Amino acid sequence: MAKTGFIGLGIMGKPMAKNLIKAGYDLIVYDVAEQPLKEVADAGAQAAGSIAEVAQNADVIVTMLPNSPHVKEVVLGGGGVLENAKEGTIIVDMSSISPVATKEIAAECAKKSVVMLDAPVSGGEPKAIEGTLAIMAGGDEAAFKKVEKMLHCMGSSAILVGEVGSGNVTKLANQIIVAANIAGMSEAMVLASKSGVDPEKVYNAIRGGLAGSTVLDAKMPLVLEGNFKPGFRIELHIKDLQNVLDAAGVTQCEVPITSEIIGMMKELREDGKGQDDHGGLIQYYEKKSGVQCRKK
Amino acid sequence: MAKTGFIGLGIMGKPMAKNLIKAGYDLIVYDVAEQPLKEVADAGAQAAGSIAEVAQNADVIVTMLPNSPHVKEVVLGGGGVLENAKEGTIIVDMSSISPVATKEIAAECAKKSVVMLDAPVSGGEPKAIEGTLAIMAGGDEAAFKKVEKMLHCMGSSAILVGEVGSGNVTKLANQIIVAANIAGMSEAMVLASKSGVDPEKVYNAIRGGLAGSTVLDAKMPLVLEGNFKPGFRIELHIKDLQNVLDAAGVTQCEVPITSEIIGMMKELREDGKGQDDHGGLIQYYEKKSGVQCRKK
Repeated sequence: MAKTGFIGLGIMGKPMAKNLIKAGYDLIVYDVAEQPLKEVADAGAQAAGSIAEVAQNADVIVTMLPNSPHVKEVVLGGGGVLENAKEGTIIVDMSSISPVATKEIAAECAKKSVVMLDAPVSGGEPKAIEGTLAIMAGGDEAAFKKVEKMLHCMGSSAILVGEVGSGNVTKLANQIIVAANIAGMSEAMVLASKSGVDPEKVYNAIRGGLAGSTVLDAKMPLVLEGNFKPGFRIELHIKDLQNVLDAAGVTQCEVPITSEIIGMMKELREDGKGQDDHGGLIQYYEKKSGVQCRKK
Repeated sequence: MAKTGFIGLGIMGKPMAKNLIKAGYDLIVYDVAEQPLKEVADAGAQAAGSIAEVAQNADVIVTMLPNSPHVKEVVLGGGGVLENAKEGTIIVDMSSISPVATKEIAAECAKKSVVMLDAPVSGGEPKAIEGTLAIMAGGDEAAFKKVEKMLHCMGSSAILVGEVGSGNVTKLANQIIVAANIAGMSEAMVLASKSGVDPEKVYNAIRGGLAGSTVLDAKMPLVLEGNFKPGFRIELHIKDLQNVLDAAGVTQCEVPITSEIIGMMKELREDGKGQDDHGGLIQYYEKKSGVQCRKK
């Protein structure tokens, strides 16, 4: 019986691979870094010496990589997955990348009868460890059905949204909304603070109404503590919003809120705050207005 | 026993005044329009012939007016409340106005030993009728305690947030967040639609995660129906965001998201959509990108 491949054992990929091992999958894994490769091998996977070795021995291959160029290189590059995969192989790219790149890569795969699905996740490291990620997939329905059970070993939900690339479009839609909600909260709370009104009282007064959101309840208590430990790093949110700009450019969509917020986030990154949680966006506003929202 | 005054019987003021009558308050009311004045008189209030008559006969006076200039005129103008009120009168301005104007008006009132509280509301006409508004108050605590019971006849909550003007600052904070959440949703869903992904599927895939919000669940189903009946009109949201710009100017706060969104809303108003619900902001994006998010 063919194995399941897993390439990319970073913060997210490592616990996801371990959950597949726990669920009984016969895993062959690869990463450029030795340490996580050894760790996942110790957990029961076969460590491959190359991407090619994974591709030659698996009929389903999961990739979990940082961004579009990495997925292009691993799948389409010399010695990569496509060069070595059998016909009928299913690639499940769970990375969060540009849907434009996804479509390009999937089209190349299709020429060699390899099917690619995109299946980015949301939920971050804690949910990757718990196996409770939200998985948004795009691509061929029959292929999705073949890997659906596997996806449920890593996530609490796995929804097929549309054709290939739709998973990443959905992820980007999610990231636009999260960014806008964080920016709105920040703009509102800094105005309140600068006007002499306690942000905590404002939060308590409005959270039950139309301004209520998961972002407000997840991030505002941390803002009041001045706690910007990640969570989801500003740097990663910049990456996602950059992919929004990429997709918007290709489809000719206006994304003025995204453009505004990516500018704020980049300024924070220049200030050395790229590793802060994205709730730390409020620091952009605090700096511009010379106030702080944290409790004294 | 002195009466309770109520000035401004518009869409919001009329049902609020009626709820006070129902709760047993001896009301003396005024409005420039005859029809609502007659309607509230028929419900049991005394219709006054002028603002002065209200001010001379009441020890607590509620005002519910469109915007800052109207409150200034009614309270500070010739023949207005302040000219005719007894010392110790409490003005409860429940209008949504600029907190800068609130502070100016309250300062003038204080010179004549008249106390002004600001107590704007959120919830719109349906909650005004039900008496379940959310009331955000600012001002003197002793004065607030005196009117707190009355406020609870109009709202399900009435919170004292801080000094006078804080109620309107809180309301503006609320309106910034709501605007940002609507804009984020719109930007995300139009990008999805333009990318060939069904917005309804995106909505269902992301609403349970960090992108979830009261706005998303309240407005997205209406967007999918193409239903932009108000609700809360774009025109009124423009008014509130204009007051944000006013407050931000005085306190020297940056409000880039507000500035961006007020521009979109004004363009929609020029297109004749100022009377649409603010969820109709998505029409700005739809127009720019040449797609529609409603179900076919």
